Amino acid sequence: MLINCAAYQDGRKLADIPQTAIRDYVRRPDCFVWVALRDPEVVELEAMREEFGLHELAVEDTHNGHQRPKMEEYGDMLFVVVHLLEIGAAGQVRVGEVDIFVGANYVLSVRNRSNVGFLNVRDRCEREPHLLKFGSGFVLYALMDAAVDRYFPVIDALEQELEQIEDGMFTKENSARDNIEALYALKRKLTIVQHSTTPLLETVHKLFGGRVPQVCVGMHEYYRDIYDHLERIVKHVEALRDMLNTAIQVNLSLISLDDSAITKKFAAYGALFAMPTMVAGIYGMNFEAMPELRWTYGYPLALAAMLGLDVLLWRRFRRAGWI
Amino acid sequence: MLINCAAYQDGRKLADIPQTAIRDYVRRPDCFVWVALRDPEVVELEAMREEFGLHELAVEDTHNGHQRPKMEEYGDMLFVVVHLLEIGAAGQVRVGEVDIFVGANYVLSVRNRSNVGFLNVRDRCEREPHLLKFGSGFVLYALMDAAVDRYFPVIDALEQELEQIEDGMFTKENSARDNIEALYALKRKLTIVQHSTTPLLETVHKLFGGRVPQVCVGMHEYYRDIYDHLERIVKHVEALRDMLNTAIQVNLSLISLDDSAITKKFAAYGALFAMPTMVAGIYGMNFEAMPELRWTYGYPLALAAMLGLDVLLWRRFRRAGWI
Amino acid sequence: MLINCAAYQDGRKLADIPQTAIRDYVRRPDCFVWVALRDPEVVELEAMREEFGLHELAVEDTHNGHQRPKMEEYGDMLFVVVHLLEIGAAGQVRVGEVDIFVGANYVLSVRNRSNVGFLNVRDRCEREPHLLKFGSGFVLYALMDAAVDRYFPVIDALEQELEQIEDGMFTKENSARDNIEALYALKRKLTIVQHSTTPLLETVHKLFGGRVPQVCVGMHEYYRDIYDHLERIVKHVEALRDMLNTAIQVNLSLISLDDSAITKKFAAYGALFAMPTMVAGIYGMNFEAMPELRWTYGYPLALAAMLGLDVLLWRRFRRAGWI
Amino acid sequence: MLINCAAYQDGRKLADIPQTAIRDYVRRPDCFVWVALRDPEVVELEAMREEFGLHELAVEDTHNGHQRPKMEEYGDMLFVVVHLLEIGAAGQVRVGEVDIFVGANYVLSVRNRSNVGFLNVRDRCEREPHLLKFGSGFVLYALMDAAVDRYFPVIDALEQELEQIEDGMFTKENSARDNIEALYALKRKLTIVQHSTTPLLETVHKLFGGRVPQVCVGMHEYYRDIYDHLERIVKHVEALRDMLNTAIQVNLSLISLDDSAITKKFAAYGALFAMPTMVAGIYGMNFEAMPELRWTYGYPLALAAMLGLDVLLWRRFRRAGWI
Amino acid sequence: MLINCAAYQDGRKLADIPQTAIRDYVRRPDCFVWVALRDPEVVELEAMREEFGLHELAVEDTHNGHQRPKMEEYGDMLFVVVHLLEIGAAGQVRVGEVDIFVGANYVLSVRNRSNVGFLNVRDRCEREPHLLKFGSGFVLYALMDAAVDRYFPVIDALEQELEQIEDGMFTKENSARDNIEALYALKRKLTIVQHSTTPLLETVHKLFGGRVPQVCVGMHEYYRDIYDHLERIVKHVEALRDMLNTAIQVNLSLISLDDSAITKKFAAYGALFAMPTMVAGIYGMNFEAMPELRWTYGYPLALAAMLGLDVLLWRRFRRAGWI
Repeated sequence: MLINCAAYQDGRKLADIPQTAIRDYVRRPDCFVWVALRDPEVVELEAMREEFGLHELAVEDTHNGHQRPKMEEYGDMLFVVVHLLEIGAAGQVRVGEVDIFVGANYVLSVRNRSNVGFLNVRDRCEREPHLLKFGSGFVLYALMDAAVDRYFPVIDALEQELEQIEDGMFTKENSARDNIEALYALKRKLTIVQHSTTPLLETVHKLFGGRVPQVCVGMHEYYRDIYDHLERIVKHVEALRDMLNTAIQVNLSLISLDDSAITKKFAAYGALFAMPTMVAGIYGMNFEAMPELRWTYGYPLALAAMLGLDVLLWRRFRRAGWI
Repeated sequence: MLINCAAYQDGRKLADIPQTAIRDYVRRPDCFVWVALRDPEVVELEAMREEFGLHELAVEDTHNGHQRPKMEEYGDMLFVVVHLLEIGAAGQVRVGEVDIFVGANYVLSVRNRSNVGFLNVRDRCEREPHLLKFGSGFVLYALMDAAVDRYFPVIDALEQELEQIEDGMFTKENSARDNIEALYALKRKLTIVQHSTTPLLETVHKLFGGRVPQVCVGMHEYYRDIYDHLERIVKHVEALRDMLNTAIQVNLSLISLDDSAITKKFAAYGALFAMPTMVAGIYGMNFEAMPELRWTYGYPLALAAMLGLDVLLWRRFRRAGWI
Repeated sequence: MLINCAAYQDGRKLADIPQTAIRDYVRRPDCFVWVALRDPEVVELEAMREEFGLHELAVEDTHNGHQRPKMEEYGDMLFVVVHLLEIGAAGQVRVGEVDIFVGANYVLSVRNRSNVGFLNVRDRCEREPHLLKFGSGFVLYALMDAAVDRYFPVIDALEQELEQIEDGMFTKENSARDNIEALYALKRKLTIVQHSTTPLLETVHKLFGGRVPQVCVGMHEYYRDIYDHLERIVKHVEALRDMLNTAIQVNLSLISLDDSAITKKFAAYGALFAMPTMVAGIYGMNFEAMPELRWTYGYPLALAAMLGLDVLLWRRFRRAGWI
Repeated sequence: MLINCAAYQDGRKLADIPQTAIRDYVRRPDCFVWVALRDPEVVELEAMREEFGLHELAVEDTHNGHQRPKMEEYGDMLFVVVHLLEIGAAGQVRVGEVDIFVGANYVLSVRNRSNVGFLNVRDRCEREPHLLKFGSGFVLYALMDAAVDRYFPVIDALEQELEQIEDGMFTKENSARDNIEALYALKRKLTIVQHSTTPLLETVHKLFGGRVPQVCVGMHEYYRDIYDHLERIVKHVEALRDMLNTAIQVNLSLISLDDSAITKKFAAYGALFAMPTMVAGIYGMNFEAMPELRWTYGYPLALAAMLGLDVLLWRRFRRAGWI
Repeated sequence: MLINCAAYQDGRKLADIPQTAIRDYVRRPDCFVWVALRDPEVVELEAMREEFGLHELAVEDTHNGHQRPKMEEYGDMLFVVVHLLEIGAAGQVRVGEVDIFVGANYVLSVRNRSNVGFLNVRDRCEREPHLLKFGSGFVLYALMDAAVDRYFPVIDALEQELEQIEDGMFTKENSARDNIEALYALKRKLTIVQHSTTPLLETVHKLFGGRVPQVCVGMHEYYRDIYDHLERIVKHVEALRDMLNTAIQVNLSLISLDDSAITKKFAAYGALFAMPTMVAGIYGMNFEAMPELRWTYGYPLALAAMLGLDVLLWRRFRRAGWI
């Protein structure tokens, strides 16, 4: 689906143009075209391929989807893949993708499997003509910057999730089984986020360090800024993974500890039953000469003895923290 | 076994040629020969060695088999080893191998221990003369691309396997012992796949990054495309291994947890027996003055007391989640 | 909040100057201005941006805060972010930040979220005119050196914390649950410190190794000295993390061990009850021909037997270390 | 002990020569001498040092033994240390060492602590004069190739050992304690093999990649072939170590699982005893009004009830897999 | 404390000289001074700083102590820090430090917190004038070589310690708790040794690989020899750490195994008590019609039955390895 198609000159929008006019504007050296597609059909992509003269392998990648984040140069054209991350309604991490084709005179962005668009990016760009003057390289920056900025709330959500599990673990609010499942699910999510962000770091680095693609020249500080944000995210994810691994270990320790506590409790209560049973057994013996049996208060005394011994045991177990 | 032997010129097939004619076609600079062998005998390999003038060490490697994926240059000749992965009937990972000798005017592919051939690759190549014009370098690309594309279903199968184990783990459908064995077996498989794919990554990189062998010059985008696919596979395998290690840990936690649950259940049921036993013991004592013993309803009252106390205990254990 | 604003020439302080005079002094090539802000308002930062002509992205970073330690060059200006670490009252690690803008003729330091200032740094600098002559590069060194020196007591506090947990673990003074929580909390703290120090290492390296920013030229030994201190800290943190991981494992072993000990104790005391219960049961049997039942001392003998057997058992368990 | 001492020219053996003649042959530019020592005395080494003008530090290393695999250049002389691995009678890994001194006109190999010699290497070399023509560089290749080829059976033996332990683990044929000890011992062995092979990889790389020592020039493909074999070995050892670590973890899970199974069995059999004991206790009570006690078949009915309840319980436990 | 101060020329000692004469000898180009201090006072260090013109930061490091091993160049002066390791009386690892200042005409070694001196190094140097001719670079080599050689017995002691723990673990000679504490303590020691040796490796590499400091030129083989020894030590320490981590895991498995064994034993002995108790309970029932009760040999038969059943159970447990 075509979302938007406009031509820009000197940092300002010339006009929304029809798809058929793209060819004309792309030829004008002082002008660039910015097209946005969303979940396009094969024919739409094919039309764009012809309009801009895109490389077949890049278009194939866009068509297939599910690429890793990457930047590839096909002659003068840049092909950039960036993941779009959202937290879904059920707490899952949803991975969309924006594939950006950048030439000297055009930017084509193809958004797949994501509900959040880039209209605000276009608005912001149009409000900053002094930056939009940089041309297609700035649009690429603006799109990537917006995508990366949307990673932060995802990371924050995952961090909060870890903290909730931790709280549940130490306060015993949640069952250990729930903690295990939650930790495992979180690990899955962190792995997804890591696979979306880590390769992007290297990708962004190619846009400002070393030999920089022509369209990005002169925007060093801006791409470095994305890199810097991304590095914070990547390190944060690493730290979360590390804490999570520790949490899994710690949870095992807590389970073992609970097991110990139960064994103690079991042993203690067992003794509280075993003691009167033993005493009762003794007075159930059939010896002829057992003077206590004939005492008037033998029975209540025996009961009192049982109770007394149990109270003693109970106190001792209490002090030892077994009960 | 000789599968196929044909000469190509200018992107088009000239003819299927007999083995004895190879020498003539290889000499013609504008023409190349594409030979496919399968599980060849020593003499067949030896014949090819003489026909193409292959290096003795490379032929020895092919004869011995079980090489790691690699690319070696012997003068102008490239020797490339690629693994072929299939999921066997019993779910095991079967590793075959294709050894490819590439010269300016020839491609010799030797397939070992694999049932799936490359005939469709030849067909596709012959349908794309504009690419086949690139010569032997394109055939190498097409063969490697086909081999790498066949890794994807293998990875998917292993991912599904992990997901099934996870499901079984958390739903308690499978026994813990089965989970452990399955996780261990999966680890073995992932190790095999990793050993087939990781070294290939470096190998492919040599075919488009830095100093590129002569026959691959001008095909940069194509080899980079294989690299990109392979990197996705390698990272996917890494992620699976990582999740698997966590799953093994989590499984241990679940076992410990089960152990706790059993201990609790054991303790609870133990108490349900111990309580009436104790009460019965008390009324089994032989004191002369035990008024209850003479009550008409002493016995049923005692039974009721036992039952009542057990019901109380049972409820309490129930509420605590022990039973 | 503006803390301080002074002009220096030839290693000596010229005067405290008002903010409006900054522009004049910065223009004089033989002179530099040193301004210190603390938790500044947006307008204060904006004023400084205009005064010194700072890059928009750097000012934005300072405004947003929570940056990773880094050094960025914007043309001739250096932008350096350094974390400030303190141990809070509750033992937590508090992370503040000082952002330093350095040009040939000025240093602007912006301190955020930290109570400890850099006045003593200014004093020390003013007492060492032969070093302060180096200009803004030396002030940057002095600020970074002071920040890094303050890491040492933080590390020492964390090391002490680990040692206390270890002691508690092996002497059984603390409960295992407390140890686990303490180890987990310590891991969190070490992660925070690691994220403040490790990226700074790379940052400092850029100030004396390879191509050095103009303002730092000639101060190689001094920045290397910071690097050296920082490396010691980073390695120390790594070692602490490593020991901590081992401590978590060891703690699990100790819990398992305790569990064993409890099981043994439980078994032993169980036997001490089970033995007399069994004997009493035997003499509670209703056989007509049980000669012992008629012995005058049958009862005391039976009691003595029970006690004797229990003493025997008790000794044996004692010797085996079960009790 | 001097094993062998011969002079070669143009790929062919001239003669076995006495030690005293070495000096003469070494001076002839078209000729080289190949000497083999085994577990030499200090004086023998000293004699060789003088004969060939070897560097004192290299001779000292040979004398001390227990070097890591390495290649060192002393001027034009190469000093190469390669480990020799064998599986001893008791299954242990025995580490010998061959130290090779290579100059333009000589090869001196010193074998220590190993029973398997290199006579077959000499034989093979003498049968391939077209390769032996390369001179001392080829002899070095042949010796290293032979040493590396002997690693394969060692690795295979260790792999088999791991597989046996795995089988024992999952089939419960071996005791868990035996598995643990075997896994630990295998880890030791793998560590030894790793320390013999990993540094050799880097060593061999120096003989064909980058600046190559003079005597190895022109033998690129041959040394690369050793490298390739060695890399397979190194990766195999890594994989074995990785599987072994997992096996240790899995073994722990299996032990925990066994523990659970025992607890269940214990609980089940405990109940089978506790049930009749409780019933018997009830009918041992001394209430006057217990009608069952007077029934003619009260006793057999009670016994039958006990038995019946136990059978019910037994079936239930059986179904639950506890027994 | 000044230990020694002597001037050397042409590989031979000229004379022991007073501190005040240092200045004169250092000025003579063909001569060098070798001074040794031990745990010096501030004033002694300050005197040396003036005598040799040492850099302030290096002297500060020496004064503060507790540096990581490192090599720093201050102009033409080298500043080298090497740790001195000893095994203390209580088995602890004691870390001393020797700081070496090396100029073209002088060597100043400052030993801190270590009892073992370098007098024998001086003696050996003076006995080898052909090497001492190299000047201060050779003295640096000799000091470092001596320090590194003293690491070997430390590593050997730690290896022996690990082996003793292993033996204790598998033979059950030591208690599991002792093993855990010993493993943890050993980990601490290995961490200390690693922090003393690993950074030194890099340090030594700078003295013979790449751009070498002037005073070390021409001594390539000698420094490489130290590097080689050090690499062996570093790899050995790594291997010990790796084995130790495995040992900790294995120990946990052994503890779990012991726990299983105890549970089995407990269950078995429990049954041996529960069986007669149950039988006795049955014959304690008060049914009127229990013919056995009236048999003359009822009682001894019952006892025999109890005993017989217990023997049967005992045998069965014995066979199952539970007892």
